[in-house]
Amino acid sequence: MQRPIVTLTTDFGLNDHFVGTMKGVILNIAPNAEIVDICHSVQPYDILDGALTLAESYNYFPTRTVHVVVVDPGVGSARRPIIAASDRHNFVAPDHGVLSLMYAREERLHVRHVSSDHYFLQPISNTFHGRDIFAPVAAYLAKGLDHEKFGPEITDYVRFNAPRPKPVDAKTLRGVVLKVDRFGNLITNFTPSDVPALFDGQPAGFKITVGKKEITAMKTSYAEGAPNEVFGILGSMGYLEIAANRGAANQLTGAAKGTEVNISLEGALAAGNGKN
Amino acid sequence: MQRPIVTLTTDFGLNDHFVGTMKGVILNIAPNAEIVDICHSVQPYDILDGALTLAESYNYFPTRTVHVVVVDPGVGSARRPIIAASDRHNFVAPDHGVLSLMYAREERLHVRHVSSDHYFLQPISNTFHGRDIFAPVAAYLAKGLDHEKFGPEITDYVRFNAPRPKPVDAKTLRGVVLKVDRFGNLITNFTPSDVPALFDGQPAGFKITVGKKEITAMKTSYAEGAPNEVFGILGSMGYLEIAANRGAANQLTGAAKGTEVNISLEGALAAGNGKN
Amino acid sequence: MQRPIVTLTTDFGLNDHFVGTMKGVILNIAPNAEIVDICHSVQPYDILDGALTLAESYNYFPTRTVHVVVVDPGVGSARRPIIAASDRHNFVAPDHGVLSLMYAREERLHVRHVSSDHYFLQPISNTFHGRDIFAPVAAYLAKGLDHEKFGPEITDYVRFNAPRPKPVDAKTLRGVVLKVDRFGNLITNFTPSDVPALFDGQPAGFKITVGKKEITAMKTSYAEGAPNEVFGILGSMGYLEIAANRGAANQLTGAAKGTEVNISLEGALAAGNGKN
Repeated sequence: MQRPIVTLTTDFGLNDHFVGTMKGVILNIAPNAEIVDICHSVQPYDILDGALTLAESYNYFPTRTVHVVVVDPGVGSARRPIIAASDRHNFVAPDHGVLSLMYAREERLHVRHVSSDHYFLQPISNTFHGRDIFAPVAAYLAKGLDHEKFGPEITDYVRFNAPRPKPVDAKTLRGVVLKVDRFGNLITNFTPSDVPALFDGQPAGFKITVGKKEITAMKTSYAEGAPNEVFGILGSMGYLEIAANRGAANQLTGAAKGTEVNISLEGALAAGNGKN
Repeated sequence: MQRPIVTLTTDFGLNDHFVGTMKGVILNIAPNAEIVDICHSVQPYDILDGALTLAESYNYFPTRTVHVVVVDPGVGSARRPIIAASDRHNFVAPDHGVLSLMYAREERLHVRHVSSDHYFLQPISNTFHGRDIFAPVAAYLAKGLDHEKFGPEITDYVRFNAPRPKPVDAKTLRGVVLKVDRFGNLITNFTPSDVPALFDGQPAGFKITVGKKEITAMKTSYAEGAPNEVFGILGSMGYLEIAANRGAANQLTGAAKGTEVNISLEGALAAGNGKN
Repeated sequence: MQRPIVTLTTDFGLNDHFVGTMKGVILNIAPNAEIVDICHSVQPYDILDGALTLAESYNYFPTRTVHVVVVDPGVGSARRPIIAASDRHNFVAPDHGVLSLMYAREERLHVRHVSSDHYFLQPISNTFHGRDIFAPVAAYLAKGLDHEKFGPEITDYVRFNAPRPKPVDAKTLRGVVLKVDRFGNLITNFTPSDVPALFDGQPAGFKITVGKKEITAMKTSYAEGAPNEVFGILGSMGYLEIAANRGAANQLTGAAKGTEVNISLEGALAAGNGKN
């Protein structure tokens, strides 16, 4: 019999007992659960960052995995705890949009307001619902309890659209650095469908401006870059990345999370752009 | 059959192979063990910080969990390795007090000097007893070996009292910041029994002084705070925390671990204070 | 039946989803795998650092463990993915030398070029082979697939020798700081066979020069050191360490990774030195 998997994505960091305590709560209820850390370094309180981290990873896990996301600036306030059930996975999170990018990818979803508080750890604190609400709910799901048991289905759950590139003029699109990874690569919000010409194999006549750099080269692997050269590349998450070979593009460009990225093409923007 | 759980709390950090190597040793002896990291970012050599981390988390784990705590500035010296057995859990640690806060909470305890060195990894290094002593002892416990097999019971094990608030005058108690968490919240050593008036629901006429701030508001959730407002709140560990809503109280107050915290009440201190 | 163990050693850090995503891929293929993190803080792109981390830890794991090492500056280029099979373990890595220190310790080795790309995750990205190649290959090995299935045996795999101390003159050997650990200890590349006199029990007439410090004391445990004293000690990995008692030797000496370490002995260097 397969062990149920529970993944954890939080902004709790690893300097405190928070994550370990959540695992204790889960194992106390679901002793066979296999708990996997996705990431605990989500930027504190940053719901979009949590949403991105989940979206990049959840689909690689086996069917029936329970994904817990705790980025929860509103802990103890009226925001609802929810369970979202897709065809393959269950998700447990506060209802403030951290599941939005997952919602955008899944067709059949049932979202429930978790109101059956006899599944919670009592007494419920006002400051650590990761321990008192989200961990035990995930554990009962992992144990096989049906999501219908936890509360009524809702349709007014909070969702937002990820920031999308916008046309500035007939030849220019403006996007943003969504995040900077461990290696200093800048993950932007451009996808191939936004700028097909850029991912054509032999793109020409384009300029990507980010921070203090103008970038005119696309590569297909990091190793193709010359020392200190900054280039564009299709990243593993399907976004345009600004990168350097064995170097940190964030340092070379002076860019950071939230920095504007402009792409201009010599011809007009390809069909399909500006639609979003 | 339930997998035996072994938790790890250390000051080894995550930049080296230390924690991974301990896990290899444990799995080599107890292949079914489920190893859970509580925290490896205990401040180096800081026994009180290790004691707090354990105390905040151990009780959430299932019965029969083996908790290993390695904060060990005396590694290779004469300090004893010990096993402490409570009704529910086993603890493995150096005998220098890192289990003190657990001792204070558990009524029935048997503490043993681990002297049966045939359970150790040979040859024993003088610099990495986490690998050579604590990991294998934990693994044999997880495998079901009785704690009586490891050495004689002792009663002179090292224990200390956590720092407690002290009265400064008839209206003022002085405590301390025990730790700063990931979000910049200041965890103090005040509990509701020290200052019942503060946790009354509608406290008034009090002032908390910490760093450069005077705090006159108590909240029941972080989200109640106004931007940049610093307030008091009952934290998830049962201590008074100094916090801010989506902000870092340590930065807003200039306080850090070890900073004094003074609470003055307009009336005299409530009955019960100053007893400790 | 024993769970197959897969260990992970990478330079991916813990600030992104990378490690979590690899775990999802592994568990999707080998649901019973037990995944253990050795270290994800290998210095970015630093193959020697990855090789050291693996060498310090792999041998403590049970027979049949699959060790995955992803430090991969050449991801997406022509460097080969390989499996190395020793008598006890399997190793999965890019073929650029990160397994070199393991090769130097194992007598019987079979190394294969992993060319059977039907075991890879499709489509294969050019930027995240940890997810698309190394994780699935490790998972199939963990599931019991024989390493012969993955591709042809090769003998021209990349290997390098770790930097060894060199004689400077008749009385002096020059080595290097290989790494600095969490506590600030400097791990050098001197072993007891390089300077037997230093590990004699009562060494005398020696001087170790590193950074701004001259060191004339050897200790057998950290706790023997006086406050702020910097001394030599045999570390848990079999290398000479430069250390301090509850202090950070890197700060006290001003040394870092790569700093030269000179050992001079009053007598001539003992027989056996300078051979390397």
